[in-house]
Amino acid sequence: MQGRIRRMLKIIVITTGGTIEKVYSELTSTVENLDNQIDRYLGRLRLSDCDVRVVPLMNKDSLEMTDADRSAILELIKQMLSGGSAFVITHGTDTMVQTGLYLKQALPELKVPIVLTGAMTPLGFEGSDGLQNLTESLLAVRLLEPGIYVVMHNQAFPIDRVRKDRETSRFVWIN
Amino acid sequence: MQGRIRRMLKIIVITTGGTIEKVYSELTSTVENLDNQIDRYLGRLRLSDCDVRVVPLMNKDSLEMTDADRSAILELIKQMLSGGSAFVITHGTDTMVQTGLYLKQALPELKVPIVLTGAMTPLGFEGSDGLQNLTESLLAVRLLEPGIYVVMHNQAFPIDRVRKDRETSRFVWIN
Amino acid sequence: MQGRIRRMLKIIVITTGGTIEKVYSELTSTVENLDNQIDRYLGRLRLSDCDVRVVPLMNKDSLEMTDADRSAILELIKQMLSGGSAFVITHGTDTMVQTGLYLKQALPELKVPIVLTGAMTPLGFEGSDGLQNLTESLLAVRLLEPGIYVVMHNQAFPIDRVRKDRETSRFVWIN
Amino acid sequence: MQGRIRRMLKIIVITTGGTIEKVYSELTSTVENLDNQIDRYLGRLRLSDCDVRVVPLMNKDSLEMTDADRSAILELIKQMLSGGSAFVITHGTDTMVQTGLYLKQALPELKVPIVLTGAMTPLGFEGSDGLQNLTESLLAVRLLEPGIYVVMHNQAFPIDRVRKDRETSRFVWIN
Repeated sequence: MQGRIRRMLKIIVITTGGTIEKVYSELTSTVENLDNQIDRYLGRLRLSDCDVRVVPLMNKDSLEMTDADRSAILELIKQMLSGGSAFVITHGTDTMVQTGLYLKQALPELKVPIVLTGAMTPLGFEGSDGLQNLTESLLAVRLLEPGIYVVMHNQAFPIDRVRKDRETSRFVWIN
Repeated sequence: MQGRIRRMLKIIVITTGGTIEKVYSELTSTVENLDNQIDRYLGRLRLSDCDVRVVPLMNKDSLEMTDADRSAILELIKQMLSGGSAFVITHGTDTMVQTGLYLKQALPELKVPIVLTGAMTPLGFEGSDGLQNLTESLLAVRLLEPGIYVVMHNQAFPIDRVRKDRETSRFVWIN
Repeated sequence: MQGRIRRMLKIIVITTGGTIEKVYSELTSTVENLDNQIDRYLGRLRLSDCDVRVVPLMNKDSLEMTDADRSAILELIKQMLSGGSAFVITHGTDTMVQTGLYLKQALPELKVPIVLTGAMTPLGFEGSDGLQNLTESLLAVRLLEPGIYVVMHNQAFPIDRVRKDRETSRFVWIN
Repeated sequence: MQGRIRRMLKIIVITTGGTIEKVYSELTSTVENLDNQIDRYLGRLRLSDCDVRVVPLMNKDSLEMTDADRSAILELIKQMLSGGSAFVITHGTDTMVQTGLYLKQALPELKVPIVLTGAMTPLGFEGSDGLQNLTESLLAVRLLEPGIYVVMHNQAFPIDRVRKDRETSRFVWIN
């Protein structure tokens, strides 16, 4: 039973932007993707027996993410896969599943879990789900079998079993 | 693979006190176990496809927990086991492992996970690990196989493989 | 000396919207003026010998505030002036001075202070100045002489001595 | 009227410990005065036209404060008085008034305000009044006439008109 819990864990966190990293800009009075926020929030978590490395790759609203961007994510993962690390990708929720399915097709024989996560309300805003989702994703890669998942709101969805439901601001099972 | 993820989840959260629920008392200028705090913090989490019920059982520093208290926890679990719920028990860290081992001996054929968790710094205090540990425990009971665990600080320890290390304020693997 | 400190204080807080009350909407992924937020934040302050009444009047971005809106603020103050209360008006920063000058012209013989305040970043967002400004405004009406002021960022400006400096996100002295 | 508002302000913040600076120690499971916390919290405030200097003098529970400690506070103020700065002293609430009266006797011809403040619940603990009291004190020294005051909970008390009421965790007027 315990064999499936990864006792020592290496995690690469790839940040791509999305709502989770948006901040309020006093200049424009809107929320924007300006900088990588994930690092700072990871600093609030206690992560035992865990070696976390953050790689800020881009800082985009996921509706503006292109095929070239998805390809960049894939190439980065391919380069780093041999190290045995699990991956957490922070990503906008609108095209998170699309990115995940693209990775699944390109990475057929995974030996580690890859978790996509994000937030409905940005980190640092009252009522944000961002730190919850980060916390869950970092634990999920310790416990889940190899594969590609969306982890949010106390759920872990295999990537081909999930869609975003915009009206309820959550992800739901399909099939 | 996906079969092991519990898609629909019923969780019973049994609260017993411990550091995680301590509050600052202006009357005594110390931290004390006065009320159940867990309910209020669960309200900050988004829990999809999840039916959570909180049962406040006692509110004690775990160094003051007696055999009768442990027996009360066991009886409560026995009463509620038939419903198929998983359990999260919030508990002081000093005797958390002792309580877990007691439950393991008394509950040999578990069909659900039982997770013990707590905190090194109380909920609501700067730098608290309480909400992280709660978040992790609620996800852990969705993913872990039946058994009794300590879940804290991005780790999930089977109950007979863990001890608290006071000097570093964390739990560590044994064996 | 001490005669100028109002020992017992009645304050009417008129809320009109502005950045200070904006919230993040998950539906539109933008910040919007949806509800009165002030009440909830006042609940976090300890206000001794102080009777505070909140009157939510409108919930507008101050760039959309019309003459009719300013007239409504004035009429409300006129109705309530006889009670001897001081006033705090939460307001968008872009036209805060304009509203204050309008009130000054219409209310020549004030016997109480009227303080306008707001925020550069909404209440509940990381780095918000909203609660600081509310706290300062509520103390300012205890200490300031009758007149109309902008109180923000550890400053108290008489209304005809102040302008907003957009580039530095602050208010500055004129004259 | 406006002449009494200090447009440009120099403030020296002397920190002495007390509840406001207590932190939770995971080693002892109690709250203790370990380090100066004020600096970090001042960094959360926006202070315009204001030059703030923090001088950490001691870090004591105010029940343990001795005559020598009070003398050290007085000597520090005397050394720095000629610069024209106002003073905010963070201090435990139990003997705050005693320290203030001692300073009043020794400093008869003040040309600046000296404000004593503190907290009933430490900074960084849920429900703390510490940041509110700091915010108020920094504004109070801009607005108050020369003299020695306790500023807390939306009140400004001349030092010879105030006592702490332990049962209600607040300060009240006398005379």
